[in-house]
Amino acid sequence: MTEFRFESWASDGNARRGRLHTAHGTIETPAFMPVGTAATVKAMRPESVAETGAEILLANTYHLMLRPGPERVERLGGLHKMMNWPKPILTDSGGYQVMSLASLRKLEEEGVTFRSHLDGSEHKLTPERSIGIQHALDSTITMCLDECTPFPATHEAAEISMALSMRWAERCRSAFVKRPGYGLFGIVQGSVYPDLRQTSCEALQKIGFDGYAIGGLAVGEGQQMMFDTLDITVPHLPADRPRYLMGVGKPADLVGGVKRGVDMFDCVLPTRSGRTAQAFTRRGTVNLRNARHQDDPRPLDIDCTCPACRDYSRAYLHHLIRAEEILGLMLLTWHNLHYYQELMAGLRRSIETGTLEQFEQDFARQQSDGDIASLTGAAMAEEETE
Amino acid sequence: MTEFRFESWASDGNARRGRLHTAHGTIETPAFMPVGTAATVKAMRPESVAETGAEILLANTYHLMLRPGPERVERLGGLHKMMNWPKPILTDSGGYQVMSLASLRKLEEEGVTFRSHLDGSEHKLTPERSIGIQHALDSTITMCLDECTPFPATHEAAEISMALSMRWAERCRSAFVKRPGYGLFGIVQGSVYPDLRQTSCEALQKIGFDGYAIGGLAVGEGQQMMFDTLDITVPHLPADRPRYLMGVGKPADLVGGVKRGVDMFDCVLPTRSGRTAQAFTRRGTVNLRNARHQDDPRPLDIDCTCPACRDYSRAYLHHLIRAEEILGLMLLTWHNLHYYQELMAGLRRSIETGTLEQFEQDFARQQSDGDIASLTGAAMAEEETE
Repeated sequence: MTEFRFESWASDGNARRGRLHTAHGTIETPAFMPVGTAATVKAMRPESVAETGAEILLANTYHLMLRPGPERVERLGGLHKMMNWPKPILTDSGGYQVMSLASLRKLEEEGVTFRSHLDGSEHKLTPERSIGIQHALDSTITMCLDECTPFPATHEAAEISMALSMRWAERCRSAFVKRPGYGLFGIVQGSVYPDLRQTSCEALQKIGFDGYAIGGLAVGEGQQMMFDTLDITVPHLPADRPRYLMGVGKPADLVGGVKRGVDMFDCVLPTRSGRTAQAFTRRGTVNLRNARHQDDPRPLDIDCTCPACRDYSRAYLHHLIRAEEILGLMLLTWHNLHYYQELMAGLRRSIETGTLEQFEQDFARQQSDGDIASLTGAAMAEEETE
Repeated sequence: MTEFRFESWASDGNARRGRLHTAHGTIETPAFMPVGTAATVKAMRPESVAETGAEILLANTYHLMLRPGPERVERLGGLHKMMNWPKPILTDSGGYQVMSLASLRKLEEEGVTFRSHLDGSEHKLTPERSIGIQHALDSTITMCLDECTPFPATHEAAEISMALSMRWAERCRSAFVKRPGYGLFGIVQGSVYPDLRQTSCEALQKIGFDGYAIGGLAVGEGQQMMFDTLDITVPHLPADRPRYLMGVGKPADLVGGVKRGVDMFDCVLPTRSGRTAQAFTRRGTVNLRNARHQDDPRPLDIDCTCPACRDYSRAYLHHLIRAEEILGLMLLTWHNLHYYQELMAGLRRSIETGTLEQFEQDFARQQSDGDIASLTGAAMAEEETE
């Protein structure tokens, strides 16, 4: 049986090149995880997701506990079998979506009570229940239930919130049934306060986890404050465990996150943008709904080998978008996921060769984050599910 | 250069096994053509359409003339290049959709004037313009502009309508620029009246076409009357040209049509049903929205090798439908197209081995056309585009 294990053999500054071994296969890090909220990466067959280079998906516990239900998924053989994705799957705890999607929430020491956004039915999510659900889903990487501290928060509010998350983390650790090759990650909270982040890192390590996530970011604080918070958090995390920055981000966020020692990311941006005609390319973002593409015979990105760029013109992609054709969503989603995976592959190579600074400079010169800006920040962070 | 040519080397009763040679490849007949209205078979990549066994697509002139426009398609290298489908494409004339989708129609000897259903702009479709558009699209098989006689029609009305279509057919023949491997089909009209159908067949043959379509059916007359009309029409068509029954149909319609000597079919039913959770199987139709599937670990059809049946349970397909996930539409569309192509392959084999009657009996015993009935008939024939 494969043990759940992280190895790292190269670094460049704080960035590190690694590999995560799991029961469902290995993950080259730094890695980006596409989001498959309801046990499907929207508009993609799982074979296609794998073709983009993705080695791990994220699925959302909140959505799956409501529909189709964890017990049903378990009877169907678990998430991997049900959705035909044999590679690793990370599930979140469900807590974030309870706070962003559900109604009539009541947060107590025991857990959080809420009404489903689907049918209004009442549910309770406790640390123990969250871990139990993720076990039923057969999640490769289980996340602790935490409270994602809203931004901004006073020091006092952030401390109270973080302390609750630490008590819940301990209960999650106790509830987690360890199986070979499966892992449990703790989540650092503490808003943007260095002392709270340090306290949180130390509390989690005292409990002991297979990996450490940095939560409470990408919630409207902006890129600079996110980077600053990473700078004061990552040094307090152990070197021999993977670090996961939750819900991030734009391409430039990934570059900055890797540079600061992050190993794993997830975000709805590539998939959601693909469904709203926004494409990421090496030369910045492109809005294919724009009429300037209607007679353009060139591919979206001449250097890209994805099917959208290999087989079609910008004019045809524009036509599909205008005609509201499903193929348009399929192709742009594929392209964006391909772009994100290529970006991560480039970052991994640059760490191996000690050229990350050069990579970052080239990246910054090529990009012009114009079109996409409106999609990011607080508005996009609203739900973080697909 | 390949000549446009039809060969047939086996028959079983009136059914015949054949092959159509075109500039874009050969088509084994009897053949079913998936509908790709706006230069895309909805929710399918063209590679996937080819994987189902389809060798020819139908695209709709009405939609493409309005968006993206024939001149634009021509500048992009034609339909095949634009949509990445190198195999044959048949385009209809646009007339049917003008009458079913456009507004403010005015039918005159010269042609038909209408307003676009997209933006209200005024357009005129004449026999010459329809042929010119299809030329610009680079259609492998061009259809004559005709008036699809509404059902029911009096003998007098049907005769007037058919006579107009015959005069238009002559103008289409004159306007068509013959290129090697490209073909022009005439369309038989005459409602359900034997004398009019015979007159129409003879008029078209006098003009001379590369193939003959049977129009004005699947417009609410019912299966028996459709079969009866085929019985009195097909004998008046030449044996050395392909016969195409337009807009048909349900699986049982295809079996009955092949038996009566039809070589080509097109219909939105497999694709449209795929987007409304209706699946065709060897054992009849299955509505995957139904709650009885929610815990069913079995594949949709255990004998089917399509990705939906090979990789997933009914429970997961049901989950995708309930969650309104795009992957659900993608997989069910793929399955239905696969089923239709398998049905045609079975019909072709049975003609080769002289076992069509046995095939028909086995088919009838296995099928129970329950769920799908409500989708067919006049309601579904309303537009016949995707």
